[in-house]
Amino acid sequence: MTFETISSNLSHGGTQGVYTHESSATRTPMTFSVFIPAHAPGEQLPVLLYLSGLTCTHANVTDKGEYRAACAKAGVIFVAPDTSPRGEGVANDEAYDMGQGAGFYVNATQAPWAPHFQMRRYIEEELPQVLAEHFPAADTARLGITGHSMGGHGALTIALRNPDRYRSVSAFSPIVSPLNCPWGEKALTGYLGPDKAAWREYDACALIADGARLPDLLVDQGEGDNFLADQLKTHLLQDAVTAAGMKATIRLHPGYDHSYYFISTFMAEHIAWHARKLHA
Amino acid sequence: MTFETISSNLSHGGTQGVYTHESSATRTPMTFSVFIPAHAPGEQLPVLLYLSGLTCTHANVTDKGEYRAACAKAGVIFVAPDTSPRGEGVANDEAYDMGQGAGFYVNATQAPWAPHFQMRRYIEEELPQVLAEHFPAADTARLGITGHSMGGHGALTIALRNPDRYRSVSAFSPIVSPLNCPWGEKALTGYLGPDKAAWREYDACALIADGARLPDLLVDQGEGDNFLADQLKTHLLQDAVTAAGMKATIRLHPGYDHSYYFISTFMAEHIAWHARKLHA
Repeated sequence: MTFETISSNLSHGGTQGVYTHESSATRTPMTFSVFIPAHAPGEQLPVLLYLSGLTCTHANVTDKGEYRAACAKAGVIFVAPDTSPRGEGVANDEAYDMGQGAGFYVNATQAPWAPHFQMRRYIEEELPQVLAEHFPAADTARLGITGHSMGGHGALTIALRNPDRYRSVSAFSPIVSPLNCPWGEKALTGYLGPDKAAWREYDACALIADGARLPDLLVDQGEGDNFLADQLKTHLLQDAVTAAGMKATIRLHPGYDHSYYFISTFMAEHIAWHARKLHA
Repeated sequence: MTFETISSNLSHGGTQGVYTHESSATRTPMTFSVFIPAHAPGEQLPVLLYLSGLTCTHANVTDKGEYRAACAKAGVIFVAPDTSPRGEGVANDEAYDMGQGAGFYVNATQAPWAPHFQMRRYIEEELPQVLAEHFPAADTARLGITGHSMGGHGALTIALRNPDRYRSVSAFSPIVSPLNCPWGEKALTGYLGPDKAAWREYDACALIADGARLPDLLVDQGEGDNFLADQLKTHLLQDAVTAAGMKATIRLHPGYDHSYYFISTFMAEHIAWHARKLHA
């Protein structure tokens, strides 16, 4: 497997790097960023995966997420993958909410998406292996997962399907039910086909209704978010965890929108929350 | 005077805005960002000006500076102007180190630069007036100033020429002596002409040698900065303050480079340092 360092910069006492490798899951090059705090020689630190939202690459949160100070303090490695395969040979859609930049963390079964759009497999299986192979400081037995918007959907659904693999789960402004919003309708129809039974493993609310459980969950959502009413529908997640009797802290914040101005405001709290579970 | 709000987002409990106005100093529209922390009705907060480096606009530090958490905690307003006038009718140079994006915080006297490149006047005179007029929370009698690279040069020279106007002065990776580096040679020849006597008021080391003094100064510089040896030459500033017996804390940091990964690492310390003086 090819693996290449794109950049490496000292920051907050640790190393912020950007890397690319040939992915076996997506059959494309995939780029991701890793922040590794200062640590003792031989010491391993837990890993927090951050899944980004529609249109994003690794760069958005790496530039604007304001996570490095908190990760340095907490001793947590922060990993930000891309949101889809990319490139000339990869299928795409003219809109921002499908195709490149919009992988929805599924394993696509439909043409023309299936050969490359295998982001579920990439995040669940390949990325932890790549981290374990190339970053000796990364303790991939201690994984947490979070994300924003489409990436919040990714974090919730990946963790709900694999509750033993992630010690901590949170989300910023997640799409909580692709079955019940236009973004989800379009993307899952395209990637998975019209049979909605196949969508349920990619829907946090449906997974909970079908019996999936997490020991705990932290979700932050801005009430000034333009996508809240039509796409994100946080109340459906609140209903699902209430009906299931599942522990969850779902917070609504007046005035905050969907941007990194919101995410960065609560990033340090999320990292501290993950760190308590990852270091327990 | 026209004044327009480009964007306004809640962040870290305060308001991060971007604004544009018709500048009388530069005779162009000028864009800047302002972060105002949460505050009591009628309360005024001190203002820290941040001057950016070559090629930058207000957006670089606004996106990547990681200053909002620290400013919210310290009760300091953070203002980031652009680095030059811009637009079709404004002179430019094909290189990154002259013209648009490279105003060097001078009042240009030479054609074709003179009519618009009046960044000294803009920062020293006009911007505080605009802030006082449009931001009732901004106490422009309590000003601090900082900046990065070319903006560190701007912060140092503006403060050294106006020691009574700025209560606190710091810089990240400043160009300490345009008289003694290629960036300065090119820019000041273009903006001010070949007579180097006219350059001395735009050179921090020359200003100190000529008698200018500040009560205190904080400078951080990465030792892994590619521009340190040929352009920034921090040791010349250390020599100047030592010769003058001027109080200054000039810190060299092994491994850090010229990027926002470095700036953001030390931003919270700078803001706390400014806040102690601005709230004294």
